[in-house]
Amino acid sequence: MIDRYPPAPWLTVGPGDDAAVLDLSGSLAGPVVACTDTLVEGQDFLRSWSTARDIGIKVAAQNFADVAAMGGRPHTLLVSLTTPADVPASWANEMADGLVAECARAGAVVAGGDVSAGSEIVVTGTALGTLAVGRAVLRSGASTGDVVAVTAGSGRSGAGWALLREGVVKGGVPSGDPVLRDPVLGDPVLGDLVLGDPVLETLVAEHRAPVPPYSAGVEAALAGATAMIDTSDGLVRDATRIAVSSGVVLDLDPAALNPGDDLLHAAKALGHGGASATDVAQDWVLTGGEDHALLACFPPSVTLPAAFRAIGVVREGEPGVWVGGRPFTGEGGWRHWT
Amino acid sequence: MIDRYPPAPWLTVGPGDDAAVLDLSGSLAGPVVACTDTLVEGQDFLRSWSTARDIGIKVAAQNFADVAAMGGRPHTLLVSLTTPADVPASWANEMADGLVAECARAGAVVAGGDVSAGSEIVVTGTALGTLAVGRAVLRSGASTGDVVAVTAGSGRSGAGWALLREGVVKGGVPSGDPVLRDPVLGDPVLGDLVLGDPVLETLVAEHRAPVPPYSAGVEAALAGATAMIDTSDGLVRDATRIAVSSGVVLDLDPAALNPGDDLLHAAKALGHGGASATDVAQDWVLTGGEDHALLACFPPSVTLPAAFRAIGVVREGEPGVWVGGRPFTGEGGWRHWT
Repeated sequence: MIDRYPPAPWLTVGPGDDAAVLDLSGSLAGPVVACTDTLVEGQDFLRSWSTARDIGIKVAAQNFADVAAMGGRPHTLLVSLTTPADVPASWANEMADGLVAECARAGAVVAGGDVSAGSEIVVTGTALGTLAVGRAVLRSGASTGDVVAVTAGSGRSGAGWALLREGVVKGGVPSGDPVLRDPVLGDPVLGDLVLGDPVLETLVAEHRAPVPPYSAGVEAALAGATAMIDTSDGLVRDATRIAVSSGVVLDLDPAALNPGDDLLHAAKALGHGGASATDVAQDWVLTGGEDHALLACFPPSVTLPAAFRAIGVVREGEPGVWVGGRPFTGEGGWRHWT
Repeated sequence: MIDRYPPAPWLTVGPGDDAAVLDLSGSLAGPVVACTDTLVEGQDFLRSWSTARDIGIKVAAQNFADVAAMGGRPHTLLVSLTTPADVPASWANEMADGLVAECARAGAVVAGGDVSAGSEIVVTGTALGTLAVGRAVLRSGASTGDVVAVTAGSGRSGAGWALLREGVVKGGVPSGDPVLRDPVLGDPVLGDLVLGDPVLETLVAEHRAPVPPYSAGVEAALAGATAMIDTSDGLVRDATRIAVSSGVVLDLDPAALNPGDDLLHAAKALGHGGASATDVAQDWVLTGGEDHALLACFPPSVTLPAAFRAIGVVREGEPGVWVGGRPFTGEGGWRHWT
């Protein structure tokens, strides 16, 4: 795997020795942002739904999104891979290619890793970055009167997950099992296969390999964002984290949360019509997980960075999330496979 | 778990937000050392042989030893824990206490982590450190004429493993299964239990929770070490890595590799006598793994740091390890459980 990782000016010692050495001077000088996040087969992905490349992209993306959510520029990734004996070296190499691809999109490199044997695939990434401004944007900084804003994409991963789960779009693993199987029962899934629909295929692709808006995190920090989070567990659930950490109410505007045509199209493809399609798509927006959009609060005087659009305001009150002036009580959030 | 992790002056943002933030200025300024290493249940440890605290110590120690082997001072650890549903929260808390204990010994702190569900315990640590001098001590820098030296402890972990495996010392999990069971068959192990022997208990304790000499890595770098490695896979195997990376022969002096009284005592406790005991103990010194001692090469003019003693010299030749003027051909090295 390690021969697949490109060099970088700040990577003084790359993979292959006891440890990597990073020169974080020049444009990478400043407070270091660090986080770790793991994907477990069967819990976070299925090999019949995601390619190895998807998994590499996903583990890099979810770690880099956490760096971005602090206002950091991700630059370095370390990865530990545990695999069962039946996983071929080609799987690990394709996963490494996914890591490299997402690193390239983020302006980062793989600095090192570890390979172990186990009974299921477990991939742990650790991302390092540098704060764009001297201070981190925490979850706890939102103030009454702030504007609540989010980057694009809420609900798209949830829609992609539903399309895969119901068999409307097949898993798309190019050289693997051609039949989508139920993850629990192992039976072939009998849903209608709709192939060649680019809107649906894109939603599924974004579920399998998320596309976090890394530079939007830096832009938010530079613009003076007071609080920020990566929406990995669903818009409302992650908004609640900001609300509780900051001791405020995030009051979201339902008119700003209407699902887009792509989500409505997906709901219809799943057999929902009329108001039911709108409800299903709205639920994806509010509670679908793994979008890795950035949710942030800004002082009202700030011109929002281009990647953000306003979806609500911060108010005083019992900490929590309101939608349309009332506490949100819907169920949902990020769905595990099991 | 995160309420168990103490703060540190350089930990600007600790566990609990999207990512940690580190202020690596002042005494922590300089090139950053980074590595990751994983422990998998059944492969790297057994819950019937090691306490959760042992596992916490071990994952921290093996990562910090890699930082030390570059000449770095470890200061920060991130940890991702995957556990089956039947592992109680108390196990995770005890593991966290082990992390904290080893961090304290190393002068480091836990900056963040992740918790996932899976079918077996997988613990991935990522360590960060700062180089003590401007340059890293690589595996590739050994030169003809250098002195080969090692810190104390070679063979002790291998001896402890053998004592556990043969049932001479029981696993010692305080509140768990009181009977040591064969890891493959699940049967009670029928070896003689020798309790209350402090020499044997210490060897087992060091296998379960290694004690790497972190400051020796910094001292070696300051003294001008040309090459260094952490002996995680056995003295000869890791010496071979330096030899191959540097394109030299590491010619080890058999008189400097004689096993100590503790190893001979352990070999006898395992039923070996006379020359056989010496052979078994010698094999632990040369090929036993998981010692996490530091093996380094120094220019001949250097006064060795106190933690190191000379065990050989670097010569020209087909890269590899010699013992007593002849290529080493013994089998062995780090033993997986399976």
